[in-house]
This record gives sequence, C-alpha cells and structure tokens, in this order.
Amino acid sequence: MPFAYDALLSTAASAQQAAPFQGLPPYHFVGGNIDEPTVPAEALAVAVSKVLREQGHAMGKYGMDSGPQGYLPLREEIARILARRCGMKAPAGDILVTTGSLQAMDLVNKAFLNPGDVVLLEEANYMGAISKLRALGVTPHPVALDADGMRMDALEEALAHYRGRGITPKFIYTIPTIQNPTATVMPAARRHEMLTLSAKYGVPIFEDDCYADLVFSGQRPPAIHALDTEDRVIYCGTFSKTIAPALRVGYLVAPWPLMGRILPLKTDAGSGALEQMVLAEYLPDNFDAHIAALLPMLQEKSDALCAALDEHFGAAADYDRPAGGIYLWVTLPDNVDTERLNQAALRHGIEINPGHQWTVNGAENRHRMRICFGHPSLDTIRDGIAKLADICFDEFGVPVRSGNLDRG
Amino acid sequence: MPFAYDALLSTAASAQQAAPFQGLPPYHFVGGNIDEPTVPAEALAVAVSKVLREQGHAMGKYGMDSGPQGYLPLREEIARILARRCGMKAPAGDILVTTGSLQAMDLVNKAFLNPGDVVLLEEANYMGAISKLRALGVTPHPVALDADGMRMDALEEALAHYRGRGITPKFIYTIPTIQNPTATVMPAARRHEMLTLSAKYGVPIFEDDCYADLVFSGQRPPAIHALDTEDRVIYCGTFSKTIAPALRVGYLVAPWPLMGRILPLKTDAGSGALEQMVLAEYLPDNFDAHIAALLPMLQEKSDALCAALDEHFGAAADYDRPAGGIYLWVTLPDNVDTERLNQAALRHGIEINPGHQWTVNGAENRHRMRICFGHPSLDTIRDGIAKLADICFDEFGVPVRSGNLDRG
Repeated sequence: MPFAYDALLSTAASAQQAAPFQGLPPYHFVGGNIDEPTVPAEALAVAVSKVLREQGHAMGKYGMDSGPQGYLPLREEIARILARRCGMKAPAGDILVTTGSLQAMDLVNKAFLNPGDVVLLEEANYMGAISKLRALGVTPHPVALDADGMRMDALEEALAHYRGRGITPKFIYTIPTIQNPTATVMPAARRHEMLTLSAKYGVPIFEDDCYADLVFSGQRPPAIHALDTEDRVIYCGTFSKTIAPALRVGYLVAPWPLMGRILPLKTDAGSGALEQMVLAEYLPDNFDAHIAALLPMLQEKSDALCAALDEHFGAAADYDRPAGGIYLWVTLPDNVDTERLNQAALRHGIEINPGHQWTVNGAENRHRMRICFGHPSLDTIRDGIAKLADICFDEFGVPVRSGNLDRG
Repeated sequence: MPFAYDALLSTAASAQQAAPFQGLPPYHFVGGNIDEPTVPAEALAVAVSKVLREQGHAMGKYGMDSGPQGYLPLREEIARILARRCGMKAPAGDILVTTGSLQAMDLVNKAFLNPGDVVLLEEANYMGAISKLRALGVTPHPVALDADGMRMDALEEALAHYRGRGITPKFIYTIPTIQNPTATVMPAARRHEMLTLSAKYGVPIFEDDCYADLVFSGQRPPAIHALDTEDRVIYCGTFSKTIAPALRVGYLVAPWPLMGRILPLKTDAGSGALEQMVLAEYLPDNFDAHIAALLPMLQEKSDALCAALDEHFGAAADYDRPAGGIYLWVTLPDNVDTERLNQAALRHGIEINPGHQWTVNGAENRHRMRICFGHPSLDTIRDGIAKLADICFDEFGVPVRSGNLDRG
C-alpha cells in the first residue's frame, strides 16, 4: 500500500496541491512569457559554445573563479549596462547575480523581514511580491497609484502613520519603470521626492526595474538608484523579459556592507554558471540592438490588444495605454468578477490574471484584470479578446450590446 | 552619509557577514569541487549549440514546453539513468529537476518540517544538511555509523525512543552510497532493513544519492528507492559531482501526490533551462563513458591522499579508505582541535573541513576532519598534506616525531 504522506506534511505543504502539467492554454494572457521568435537562439548558441571552450573547465568549481557573487565578466557587463541604460554607478563588487530576479526579491525579504514587519508598496502590484510578504508574516501596506506611479502624498501619509505608531517600515518596494501591472513610468521629479521621503523617515527603497528595458519610446528616467547619493536604494533587474524567461538570470545591486549581510543568505551554492557565461559573452555586442528590435514588436502587440479591447469591449474596458512592457491593466464594470471570468474563460482555453490577485486590497479590485501580451501572436491577441468579450457577456451581460452586435 | 542598514536587518541577516571573495587558497581541501580538466567542456559546447538551435526559442516561456517539473527530455533521460545505474523505476512524472540537489533538500525540508520537528540522520553528516535543519528549528537526531553506514540497531533505538514519547520523526535522512563524510557504502541487506524499520514506525526515508556515481569499483547496491514497493522513499541526486558543480542541475524523485505538494513550494519560476537542455543533449551518448573515465582518476587521488597521510601523519591519522567519492574522513589524536588546525592552516594557504562542522554532536568530533581530494592535483595533495602535518605538529605536537624526522 502506498505510504500516506499527508499526516507528515508541513503547514506550508498542506496548504497547496499542484496537478500534473497539462500544457498552456491556447490563449495564454498571463505570466512573464515573451515573444518566442525573438529569443536570440542562434546568437546564444554561438556565444555559449565559444565561452564554454574558453572557460568551461572552471565550472569544476562552485562559483568558478568568481566566488559567490557570480561570474565576474557578467557582473562587469551588468555594471556597464546599468551605467549606460539607467545612469547608475554600480561596480561589479556591488552586484550579485541571482537565479532570476525572484531570488533577488527573496534575498532582500530574508535580509530585512521578521514576522510582524511592514513593507510599503504600490497598491496594485506583482502578485508574487504580495504573496511572498504575506507568507513571511509581513504586512504589505498599499500606497495609492496614479498615472505617474506611486503617489508621494500617499507614501508620506503611510510613513507618517507608522512613525506615529513607533513603527519603521522595513523598506519601500517600488516598480517605478513600467509598473506591474499598471505599466506606468514614474517621472524623475517624483523619484527625487521618494528619495527625500526615504531620508526623512529613515526607510530604504527597494527598486525593482525588471521591465525597465521595455519602455516603448526607448527613453526612460534615471533609476532611483542613480539619483541616490546615500546608498539608500537596493536595486534588482533581470534578463528574463529581454533575452528569455527560462534563462534564469537576474541581479541584485546593494552596497557593502549590506551585500555582506545578503550573501550568507544565498545558500544555493551559486547560480547556474552556463547561463551566466552565455550572457557575459552575448550581451556586449548584442544587447542594445536586440532591445531596439523588440520594442516595435511589443508596441505593435500592445496596440493590437488595445484595438481589440476597444472593438470588443468598447467603453466597458477602461485602461491607460501602457508606456511599455508586456501587460495591460484593465478596469471592467463593477459587476464583473474577474476571478469568475477567468474560470469561465479557462473552459474556453483563455487565461487572464484576476485583479484580486494583483492588488493588496484584492476585494476592492475584483472587477480588474491584467492581460499579458508579450507571448501571444497578434492573431491570438485579436481572437482571444474577441472570445473573452463573448464569455464576459455570457457571464455578466458586459459589454452591453445592441441587438445587431450581440453574438452571445 | 551612507544609509545605516544594520538596525533594519532581519534576525537571520544580523547573524552573519561575508567578506568580499578573495579567491580560493592554493591548498583547497574543502567543498564539492571536482577535477577541472575532466569537465567535458568541448562535448558540452557541441551539445548546447545543437540543442539551442533546435529548441532555444521555447525559452521564451517559463518552463519551456515542459512545465514546472523541468525540461521533459532531461527528466526522461534521468529516468533512464536511474533505471540503468540504480535499479530504480521512476517515471519522468515523478522527477523534478532542481537548481542543484541543495534545492531538492530545501524542498523536502519545506514539505515536511515545522519548527520543533525531528529528523533522524547519520551522526557524521553533510554540514549543510545539519545547518539547514537547525535553521528551521528542527532537531537533527544523530544515528551512529559503522563501516557499512547508518547502523540499524541505532536507528531502531531512535525510532523506538521517539515512539515512546509520542513523536513521529518526519523522515530518515540518509546518504547510503558514499556517505558524506565517511565515504562508506551501505550493503543491500541493510537497505532492506531500513525499509522494514520505515514501515514499522511509519517514517519515510529521504535518500540522498549525490555521490553514488563515484563508487571506485563501478559496482553499487540498488538504491533504497529501488527496493521500496510502498512509495516510502524520496530520492535526490545531482550532476554536480560528475559533470560540473557550477552547472546547477540536481533532481528530486517523489511519487504523486507528494510531488503535487512539493511543486507549489518551488517558487523560483523554474530551474535554468539552458543547463537542463545541455544535459539532455549530452548525457545519452556520453554519461557512462565519462564516469568510467573519472573513476581511475579519483581512485588515484584517493590513493595519493592516503599515502601522503601515512607518510606525514603516520599512525596519528586514522581513517578507512574511501569506497568512492571525493572526500576522506580522518580521526586525529584527541588533543588536536581541527577548528584551530584549520585556522592555522589557512594562514599557510591550506583549508580543511573541521570535524565539529560535519557532525551532529560537534563537540565530540573536534579531533576529526574531512579532506576533499576531487579538485586538487596529485602534487597539491602531496604537498598540502606534508605542510598540514608540519602545521599540526607546530600547533599540537602531533604527529609525534623522532628527532631525525622533525622538520618543525
């Protein structure tokens, strides 16, 4: 008789159960997946075989010759990229290569957070950021957003609130450049204001710049890290959204001695050397040109998604056009529950992100949804949104249709 | 003025501080590093460029087309390797590719352990296994070893002890094939006994087979997993010790529905695709021949280490010849403190593993040490042990020398 494990499981394991993987639905509008044809497979193949022949034997050591912060040639190249693209001065010694930026987030959380702590963050946010904080017994305190990202009046109100109670929030978590899910870009002036508030209240900033390379215009403000003169910003980024998400390479930037506190928490014996080596070889000659080629493709997909929403949802779908990135944040009429919409859509091979998962106050955002457009083709976007509108009408009578348009 | 982070750090981060990496000492007798010339860099280069050209675009999706358990062609190949080399029947659906076997261990710990739990394990053990349990607030309960690995009388005594107190240990953690650090191999009969005890007491087994490919004779008993008919064994392995440690690819074998409990705990958005792809391409035609070539080299290093210990420490160094692997467990006279020996040796560019770190009852094992011989060359082994004997004599008067041999 098979052994019964259930009685021995931890609290964490008892809470969830996965089913075997069945493949992605045909209309897959969730997650950080990107446009598959743009993955530079041929150039990566050339790069990786060259660097393996030159450096491969060093993989006989954990950390190769670079130690626990990651492959030094890659850290040096990341330093050049951050200087050129984000205005940052971050030497290779302040950079830690991570197994995706999720690991950078986990490390910052581990370095700062005890149960009962408070973190301030944009009220609509990356689902993983919110759920990781809650899993640690930390309170994610939502700060209101507008078209320029996190509102500084709301941030100061929150900081003053906690100061009044004798509590110092551990950090301000922000995605200032292509905010997730609202796709806004915080202007430089507001970045300076955030630094001023950070100084006034003694609360550091954790800047997540994971989508920052994907501003459609190619123009972005300097990173908050770049404007900081007092080492009060910790920064993370990734190559998941520009090169390939399945290549698990992100990075964390933190000043010594804080980096010295974070390193002992990275107990994985190093991030994958091959994925670091291939990027160190590929990026110097290819990165900027690769991104320049991505941007018009993403703009075209974004435009197609907006046009499809306008055509099939009309005024029922309220949104701001994304400044970049791979997702759109949509507000539907109050009676639409996007969790139920997603369940219905899944039965037709369509998946969306329900708004309650992507907001701190989930209950107030059940009529919102995130739609990711990086991975699906233009045709999939157009067909999928048309189908989604039909399903939404069937479930909620939204969008309201005149008789000759009603295909329900 | 730089921001002062210390007051905001978590308890975990406050406990440790790393210094910037300064390179490895010249006589580096610690860690799981392997012989650098044997890393198959050229064959990996050929494999990775082929598979990237054929499959690289799929890296545009987290998990590619295989989902969260890892690249399916690699899982299928691991299943074939486990069948061929370990006698196991583990379908690809029971296999999870992990970012090194450390992640497999972390996942099993997360799946079973709450603070206050008990795990039974060999008294001399992998330092990381012990420290991870303690960091989780779990009691690692030591079980005595002999030349055949974990002693079954001692295991039953521990199981009965906890049953008497109404406590079910969460699992038995064992490294039966090239135990770390004692390098013993548990015979098949004792593996059957462990399964019988597991059934009698309702405690599952977590079998760590990370060094099992490195039995010098090329002959090994079946995995405990292979002898199990009741799904009571969870199993992990790695390619770190055979292909390259910096290539972070390990694997966990667990039956559904337990695998369905473990998967949601792997919150890293997948392990690195490129490192999985290259192994899936490389292993089928190369793995067995590669290992066959490694074994005589490791045997030669092991012999050189034993000869150097005999020559320079004489009867002061007591050890059993390793049955395989890359480390040797040495007992020195009681008055030698290997922590202090290591501190003195580091000043001369030599690093060893002090015995108190590699045992559950560290205080009783301060006169023992682990010496790793996989990475250093034969000359480095010979020179390093000669120097270590000189340092040990200077610090402790051990090994005792007659006047004409005294080089102190």
